[in-house]
Amino acid sequence: MHTENLHHGLNLVGRVVTPKITLPILSNVLLSTDEGRLKLSVTDLEIGINIWIGAKIEKPGKITLPAKIFSEFVSSCNDKKIDLEQTDFKIDLKSEKYSATLQGTAADDFPLIPEISEKPTCAISGKILEEAIPQVVSATAMDETRPVLSGVCFKFIKDKLKLVATDSYRLAEKTIPLEKAVGKDYSVIVPLKAVSEIGRILGAVSSENVQVSVSENQIRFAINEDIEVISRLIEGNFPDYEQIIPTKYTAKVKINFEDLQSALKIASLFAKESANNIKIKLKAPNQMIISARAEQIGTSKASAAAEITGSDLEVSFNAKFIFDGMSALKKGKINFDFSGNLSPAKLYLEDSKDYFYIIMPLRTEE
Amino acid sequence: MHTENLHHGLNLVGRVVTPKITLPILSNVLLSTDEGRLKLSVTDLEIGINIWIGAKIEKPGKITLPAKIFSEFVSSCNDKKIDLEQTDFKIDLKSEKYSATLQGTAADDFPLIPEISEKPTCAISGKILEEAIPQVVSATAMDETRPVLSGVCFKFIKDKLKLVATDSYRLAEKTIPLEKAVGKDYSVIVPLKAVSEIGRILGAVSSENVQVSVSENQIRFAINEDIEVISRLIEGNFPDYEQIIPTKYTAKVKINFEDLQSALKIASLFAKESANNIKIKLKAPNQMIISARAEQIGTSKASAAAEITGSDLEVSFNAKFIFDGMSALKKGKINFDFSGNLSPAKLYLEDSKDYFYIIMPLRTEE
Repeated sequence: MHTENLHHGLNLVGRVVTPKITLPILSNVLLSTDEGRLKLSVTDLEIGINIWIGAKIEKPGKITLPAKIFSEFVSSCNDKKIDLEQTDFKIDLKSEKYSATLQGTAADDFPLIPEISEKPTCAISGKILEEAIPQVVSATAMDETRPVLSGVCFKFIKDKLKLVATDSYRLAEKTIPLEKAVGKDYSVIVPLKAVSEIGRILGAVSSENVQVSVSENQIRFAINEDIEVISRLIEGNFPDYEQIIPTKYTAKVKINFEDLQSALKIASLFAKESANNIKIKLKAPNQMIISARAEQIGTSKASAAAEITGSDLEVSFNAKFIFDGMSALKKGKINFDFSGNLSPAKLYLEDSKDYFYIIMPLRTEE
Repeated sequence: MHTENLHHGLNLVGRVVTPKITLPILSNVLLSTDEGRLKLSVTDLEIGINIWIGAKIEKPGKITLPAKIFSEFVSSCNDKKIDLEQTDFKIDLKSEKYSATLQGTAADDFPLIPEISEKPTCAISGKILEEAIPQVVSATAMDETRPVLSGVCFKFIKDKLKLVATDSYRLAEKTIPLEKAVGKDYSVIVPLKAVSEIGRILGAVSSENVQVSVSENQIRFAINEDIEVISRLIEGNFPDYEQIIPTKYTAKVKINFEDLQSALKIASLFAKESANNIKIKLKAPNQMIISARAEQIGTSKASAAAEITGSDLEVSFNAKFIFDGMSALKKGKINFDFSGNLSPAKLYLEDSKDYFYIIMPLRTEE
């Protein structure tokens, strides 16, 4: 088969392969011939990925191979074509200049990736989903104390999909259109890793649309005709987050991305030892000062050009959370609305109603 | 002063600053006004660097400041000019948009960087020295069991400088011209870190020439008019390496850089668990096969197009040592001469007599 196709396929599945620690077979990839194509499968028991690659199948077969060295061999092979030949639990890899024999294990030992018989409930543009995923994943909770917060909530409402993530300190919501309205509204929570993997795969292939199917506790994303990602769902109810979104704001700021970024960067240097605690001071019509203090080292103040309306305010934030929210907005004129020194602030772009990022302030003793 | 100049200066000295572990003051940079310029000094007690920066001095002063945060503040400051103002043991940094106050310590607490009163014995082209350094440093011994091998030997012989490094498994020798012959031949051993720092600094500035001065146990490299690197010398005699360079070769190989690199890369994948042990098999006129074995995983064979003269040979090497030698040669047609399966091999470029790299084979049990 074409070395490049196999290389591409192994790259797509590579990150779900688990290092050889608990269950050694999870560091393998399952190869099986499937109706004239070669199928690659990997799983970490939470996510499974199947990928089909065009190949000339001379004889059917299946085996699992150590994924890392297999993938490295293929990626180092600069010959155009590569042949795979199975003998019992071994595979001979052969190209024009290079050859290798890899010791594998029986395909039957490989954990089953669940199949989802339910029909797709909707289709999403691959391009739009690819852009949306990085905008929400940074708000996901990294610790697992509240499992429902360790994933991204997919809310299917008529012809819209809302992606929502929060770790209870900040929240991101992105609304994207569905290509066809769902028959019945529903929502599921997909683990962060699965969502990130889908984002990564969409970044590496060009996909017209992604078909979504849901069973009781699994979700399947079918990308083009040759990739499927199957993940377990997180059980439980996603918090009713809409109530924490402020309805009134006491001060509104419009600021250039770069100006806010530079001022925050200066403050962050001095905020490293205080859990990124920085203070924002606002005074209409244009005085925004971001300050920070590093014990025994010093203090800093950075002013940023901004248009400010509303009342004066002093409020503290974790600078990292603001950076995370900004990175979703990329560039341009940012809106930063404040609702007091104990209530959430909101980051969004002027003309786009489909995305916002909410940040809780830090309580300070001063 | 110009923020960019201060930023550049702090970057040049930054890597010698030691993290705050044993002697906290070594993580500081000494600032002092010096005849109309600002002088930055850092030391790790082995290497000292002094850099002078153009500045408008309104009042003389000296102080040490925490290097990391000082340097990060300056590098994040995107205003054109920056002012420094000392009050006792504090410095106020001020630019148009940003300000910071840094707590420093008394300049007198800073360890003295030795001054070398000896006159320069020679001058080397900065550009040639910059290219030469990376070609030898990889052969330096990383462990300190034999201190003389943990540095680069500088042998000044008439109008030539030989740079030599070896860890006893491989050896690199580079010969470069001096701009003026030395009055008397001599050789010194300069610690790896100092040599690497000089290479790094030469890469960041454009230098016409480097003046070298030597005292009993220190060496000084003066780069342009505004940078000096002072290092202790390693005591002891560098091994008499010339006797291990083979005078006769039993097989000679000419091979394209890329062909050798690709074949070695494949073999290296399988050699990771055997300390990079790979085997080269030669058969005139053109059969070169590089093989490796990973226990319980598999085996690989890579053939590389080459022109071979001399007798057949099977010889094992540490693949990393061949890669290190190749990286000094960069690209083109490589010469790889062999003197048997227990004697050193030599890597060099066809038309350049000023550089070679010698590698000892591995003893194998087969």
